[in-house]
Amino acid sequence: MRIITIGREFGSGGRELGKRLADALGIPCYDKEIITEVAKIKGIDDSSIEQITEQDINSVYSITIGRTMCYYTQVDNDVISAQQKVIKKLASEGDCVIVGRQADVILSDMDPLNIFVYADRDSRLARCLARDTEGEGERAILKKMKTVDRQRAANRRLVTSKEWGKPESYHLCVNTSGIDIKTLIPALADYARAWFEK
Amino acid sequence: MRIITIGREFGSGGRELGKRLADALGIPCYDKEIITEVAKIKGIDDSSIEQITEQDINSVYSITIGRTMCYYTQVDNDVISAQQKVIKKLASEGDCVIVGRQADVILSDMDPLNIFVYADRDSRLARCLARDTEGEGERAILKKMKTVDRQRAANRRLVTSKEWGKPESYHLCVNTSGIDIKTLIPALADYARAWFEK
Repeated sequence: MRIITIGREFGSGGRELGKRLADALGIPCYDKEIITEVAKIKGIDDSSIEQITEQDINSVYSITIGRTMCYYTQVDNDVISAQQKVIKKLASEGDCVIVGRQADVILSDMDPLNIFVYADRDSRLARCLARDTEGEGERAILKKMKTVDRQRAANRRLVTSKEWGKPESYHLCVNTSGIDIKTLIPALADYARAWFEK
Repeated sequence: MRIITIGREFGSGGRELGKRLADALGIPCYDKEIITEVAKIKGIDDSSIEQITEQDINSVYSITIGRTMCYYTQVDNDVISAQQKVIKKLASEGDCVIVGRQADVILSDMDPLNIFVYADRDSRLARCLARDTEGEGERAILKKMKTVDRQRAANRRLVTSKEWGKPESYHLCVNTSGIDIKTLIPALADYARAWFEK
């Protein structure tokens, strides 16, 4: 099975890159589809699932231990465990690209190609502003960029020592600053094909 | 001008990747050639130049400032400045790949494609052992891996805030763990071509 996972900074175009790469390889790309599937299983709506799986994790300062401890509630755990099952099921069905959701960690047994997509602040802001149909504005977007990435890093720390955004956690790190992602896809598809032949 | 710079972890195969990528693109690759050129200009031998440009930088603890200060001696400065001139001259002569020597920083005005090559400890060790014709042995190689990379990071800190080995300092970071570098070259050459058409 050839599984490609995409980790990404908020606004870096990781989702676009994942979709386009999957199209080029003729395989499905799973992103929000995972949320919808988990929502169906748990009988709650998509936005609640998203809130749980991408939320700022709960934390409490322990006087005994002398540092802040992060934890999931029982409900969070149920949803996260359901999400892991969905990701494993999708991956077992055939070659695919999976965006986010720590799929690289969850599917590590399947030896996936793990790509991290990132960009400088200005490029990410420009990309977010271009798709800002709800008129959030620059200030709100910059705040969201910071918060979401902090959440991703923190959530990841609960399940693995391979840190979010550090090169050693991935096989390829792609900087999309000032680049039209479309133009990189043929080379990335070739890279993926070569990598799986290793 | 299309300039590609290669930063690399010791033993990651960055030099091999640079040479092969240059061959695939039909352009020259400069690596040790830079040292030889600088040695000619300064009238000292290659190994002295290498020692100065890749040495552990001099440092002294300043009581007034309350922290360790790094510095170059006058001789170091002369050699480093000569090396920068050689790198700029080579780059101005035409498309090329330049391995190491902070070429990405020195040539930043020319908007080079900056690639970082890295690998996990075991892969780097295996690569070094395979070319260990002098019989240095595992322990010495592991020590060298650590020392050389620490030197590279420290030397870089003297000239730029873009840190060595951090993704944001590069356009593409390639993990060569367990990979035959040859197989990645056609895709990387395509990636470079696409990147320069941005």
